[in-house]
Amino acid sequence: MITIGELINTSRKAVGEAVRTRDAARIQDLARHQAEAGVDYIDVNAGTLVGEEPEALTWLVRTVQAAVDKPCCVDSADPAAVDAALAAHRGRAVVNSVTLEKDRFERMAPLAPKYGARLVALCMDDRGIPVDARYRFEVANQLVEGLTAMGVARDDILLDPLVQPISTGTDNGLVVLDTIRAIRDQLPGTHVVCGLSNVSYGLPNRKLLNTAFLVLAMAAGLDAAILNPLDEEQMAFLTATRALLGQDRFCRGYLGAHRRGVLGGDKGISKEK
Amino acid sequence: MITIGELINTSRKAVGEAVRTRDAARIQDLARHQAEAGVDYIDVNAGTLVGEEPEALTWLVRTVQAAVDKPCCVDSADPAAVDAALAAHRGRAVVNSVTLEKDRFERMAPLAPKYGARLVALCMDDRGIPVDARYRFEVANQLVEGLTAMGVARDDILLDPLVQPISTGTDNGLVVLDTIRAIRDQLPGTHVVCGLSNVSYGLPNRKLLNTAFLVLAMAAGLDAAILNPLDEEQMAFLTATRALLGQDRFCRGYLGAHRRGVLGGDKGISKEK
Repeated sequence: MITIGELINTSRKAVGEAVRTRDAARIQDLARHQAEAGVDYIDVNAGTLVGEEPEALTWLVRTVQAAVDKPCCVDSADPAAVDAALAAHRGRAVVNSVTLEKDRFERMAPLAPKYGARLVALCMDDRGIPVDARYRFEVANQLVEGLTAMGVARDDILLDPLVQPISTGTDNGLVVLDTIRAIRDQLPGTHVVCGLSNVSYGLPNRKLLNTAFLVLAMAAGLDAAILNPLDEEQMAFLTATRALLGQDRFCRGYLGAHRRGVLGGDKGISKEK
Repeated sequence: MITIGELINTSRKAVGEAVRTRDAARIQDLARHQAEAGVDYIDVNAGTLVGEEPEALTWLVRTVQAAVDKPCCVDSADPAAVDAALAAHRGRAVVNSVTLEKDRFERMAPLAPKYGARLVALCMDDRGIPVDARYRFEVANQLVEGLTAMGVARDDILLDPLVQPISTGTDNGLVVLDTIRAIRDQLPGTHVVCGLSNVSYGLPNRKLLNTAFLVLAMAAGLDAAILNPLDEEQMAFLTATRALLGQDRFCRGYLGAHRRGVLGGDKGISKEK
């Protein structure tokens, strides 16, 4: 499971403030907490800082990597910002994200081979996000064709089927699960990533839905996630699900997490009532 | 989703004591709590009372049905005990359980058509529990053939793929999920039920594993469960999973559960840290 910590995003108020004031200590705290929680990549997103994104994103990459020995997931829709940030990045980053929209593909996709980075590819094109799992998979397929033709290895492609809220469409969860299964079956060697929390938009008890959806998506074949690694309940479910899916030989990872005290208290079963 | 409340079982100390002393009020409390939590069936199990099981099980059926307007799931390996309890039962019970073991099949299976009951059929035969999902499905298939030949409708058959602990075999969870999918695909019209908690035997934080496994099993096609309906976290995940799997039109069930306050507190997302 490839995990990407989502907390350094200027759409979060305290992070936006820290980036505007160049408060390195605050950003580095967030980087360290996420690194200690075991993420593989630290996402950096300065998308709300219109007009200053390239400088802000570059500062974020330098600030994060001065504190932790982790690569970044450079998260922006602006190819110029991604280019600048990758030039300052040490090691192999993830570009987040390319799409099959013509302009975005042409400008963003070449940055991955240019810097030897992996990249997140969103299953949408100039017509938008396909409603149907079959067409959403078809976009994934074209993304993989386009990217591999540019020399990007399949192992460096993280396909994002694009989660939409179940509050606006009863089948929106199912469409994503079906798309994940199709990618897993028909595009071997690639990875599937999701930003999970969109599934619960507009509904109460969002963490419950996000956590259940992580479990469902892992069962379908999700092997990467952009998430909050400090959400102990969700991380505990991730660890449990790996064990239940046979991805954790002798439950060693699960037992290790229990010993580190990160699975939450054992409430036992079938309490008397 | 067919839900069966598991709490009236003499292997639980307080229940064993209540049955031995014929403490009807205590049993009826448990029946009422589970009925209020919305279960479809109340499981009654007196298996630890060796030599007195037929009388105890019959008393349990009468005691439960004097308190709540719900059918029972009559849970015993002893056909004589099941026969006696069903004779006292009002409405359509569930017999729990038949297997493909020759003697047990011959003596237990006829009780379902005799009393017009549904029944739980465990995927095991005289050789034991098949290690492999393919053979476990084959036992399911033979159970369905045998039961339908006796006049049992497919809708009255709840196939139990038999959950074994992941602590004793890394793939034990996967085998059950694969068996569920095979039953769902190839034996349409039947139901799939699980006693979930065996999956976590021998491991810490059992409720976490049991709840994650419920979500995984529902994704594979589980449509019935023997569970503790008073476990609010597990029931909240069940409700969330139905919504995520497109089984809850316009999220009405989920929103109703939220309004009743049974989904737990909304902790929000992406808390600042």
